[in-house]
Amino acid sequence: MRMLGDPHGLRPPSGAPLYGGVEGGGTKFVCVMGRGPDEVVAESRIPTTTPQATLSGVVDFFRTESARVGTPAAIGVGSFGPVDLHEESPTWGYITTTPKPGWERTDVAGRLQRDLGVPVAFDTDVNAAAMGEARWGAARGLDSFVYLTVGTGIGGGGLLGGRPMHGLVHPEMGHLLLPRDPAADPFPGMCPFHGGCLEGLASGPAVLARWGQPAESLPEGHPAWPLEAHYLALAIVNFVCTLSPQRIILGGGVMEQGHLFPLIRREVVALLKGYVRAEEILYGIDSYIVPPGLGRRSGRLGAIAMAEQLERMTGR
Amino acid sequence: MRMLGDPHGLRPPSGAPLYGGVEGGGTKFVCVMGRGPDEVVAESRIPTTTPQATLSGVVDFFRTESARVGTPAAIGVGSFGPVDLHEESPTWGYITTTPKPGWERTDVAGRLQRDLGVPVAFDTDVNAAAMGEARWGAARGLDSFVYLTVGTGIGGGGLLGGRPMHGLVHPEMGHLLLPRDPAADPFPGMCPFHGGCLEGLASGPAVLARWGQPAESLPEGHPAWPLEAHYLALAIVNFVCTLSPQRIILGGGVMEQGHLFPLIRREVVALLKGYVRAEEILYGIDSYIVPPGLGRRSGRLGAIAMAEQLERMTGR
Repeated sequence: MRMLGDPHGLRPPSGAPLYGGVEGGGTKFVCVMGRGPDEVVAESRIPTTTPQATLSGVVDFFRTESARVGTPAAIGVGSFGPVDLHEESPTWGYITTTPKPGWERTDVAGRLQRDLGVPVAFDTDVNAAAMGEARWGAARGLDSFVYLTVGTGIGGGGLLGGRPMHGLVHPEMGHLLLPRDPAADPFPGMCPFHGGCLEGLASGPAVLARWGQPAESLPEGHPAWPLEAHYLALAIVNFVCTLSPQRIILGGGVMEQGHLFPLIRREVVALLKGYVRAEEILYGIDSYIVPPGLGRRSGRLGAIAMAEQLERMTGR
Repeated sequence: MRMLGDPHGLRPPSGAPLYGGVEGGGTKFVCVMGRGPDEVVAESRIPTTTPQATLSGVVDFFRTESARVGTPAAIGVGSFGPVDLHEESPTWGYITTTPKPGWERTDVAGRLQRDLGVPVAFDTDVNAAAMGEARWGAARGLDSFVYLTVGTGIGGGGLLGGRPMHGLVHPEMGHLLLPRDPAADPFPGMCPFHGGCLEGLASGPAVLARWGQPAESLPEGHPAWPLEAHYLALAIVNFVCTLSPQRIILGGGVMEQGHLFPLIRREVVALLKGYVRAEEILYGIDSYIVPPGLGRRSGRLGAIAMAEQLERMTGR
């Protein structure tokens, strides 16, 4: 239904407020304004250079677009990290100890809040993607699930009992320590901290270093794939034993090789050996381990979902 | 302060209600009535035989003690498992697929609720112990922590964002898959499902099988201890990476060897290699990995805490 006095259809039928979302990554910040997957009214990519230049670009985007389509009621930010998520901390909303040059101790949320004068929700990039999947994607209706991204790095987040996974800091699921068989895989791993942790063995750069070819150029029958599926399955088994999630969503560049999913599912069932007697795993593994429902857009749309939730909670 | 008309001091000064607690284990059910660690007014142990005999014993305990000290406002049960924790499930409050003969598909919570006519809270034995630690023990004031028990089996629970860890089923932290070095430890593990998972390598029976002596008889300098600390530290690192808990409490029979704590703490710091930059880990590991504040009583007191919380939530 189009409303009277809104001939261009910019105002939604419901008069629902508009939200901002920022997906802050190591190579680019994606900024959006909208209300959901079918209502993104503005989008822009800003290269990640210095904090000053990048965050000014983010502020400019929201100022320009606010003048065009209206002021967002709140903005959500999912950021690369590590980040400070403690609401009572003086450095809440900061990127903290990142090795990325120039970005250590960068105030992201506070800067946007001050410059734009709107409330800002802040979380890790993976928790933002998880929020997107919970709101509009493959985790709708679930209150406990894991979202794991497998790409340049490996990171995980999700909801537990309906709440984003925070804690002492936030999860660092890429650094899980896993069983290894040097005879089957002599590659020692390449994490600068832990060598052969999950990220050191199974990230995109690890695949490239082990096989001399990037994941996307390795053919489907290549031995890289059962090995990759094995490491991801070991990690998933540990998530199942630790968190008992209702579903596991695997996103990121490496997981765009869709043929990995059946290999991973088979290996998870084989490794669990029937111990966790949940129908979802024993008989429904195809819908237990799934790709993101929002494809590559989980993070930016999740940032919008975070803004929407913040606005609801603060009762505006 | 003693109240008028209460010459024996049985009624508390506050007039606070009385709660029941049941710690349901594989060898015995410990039943208590009280209000907290300093106010346990009745306690009894009932051997775990058949469900019929054991649960009748539990019902008799509460009937007898209710007549003596007063009816509990609610009863909490922490049970061995696997258990069904889904409140909307027709088998909520059941022990489900346990290998323990005769106990498969046993209705525990419903039976007590019907026979005693009081509300019953139900969770795993380890989540109950975690609740006790959160209410009166080593996790007071925390909303995200892990409680791991290392004894005949290995099990874990805890709070995340203030809520007990449930999910698809509930955590099975004993079955984590860990890195192993067969040259350093040729023992293959003894979990009937996974061989060398955490429980298969580091439970009390695994220590006995590997060294031919029970844990409590191995001297402090025995090589069993650094190996035990290594496996537990690997598991703790994975919990830190997955859950980011604010503290980790280690209980159970094996952990009564207090000299294990410094070994485990040192190994956790060594394995993390400075990656998780939390002051609590880098500078405060002695208060990050700790024994239970309630000693062996975490489970039964936690069951009382669950009853107390249920009564508050239902607004009686």
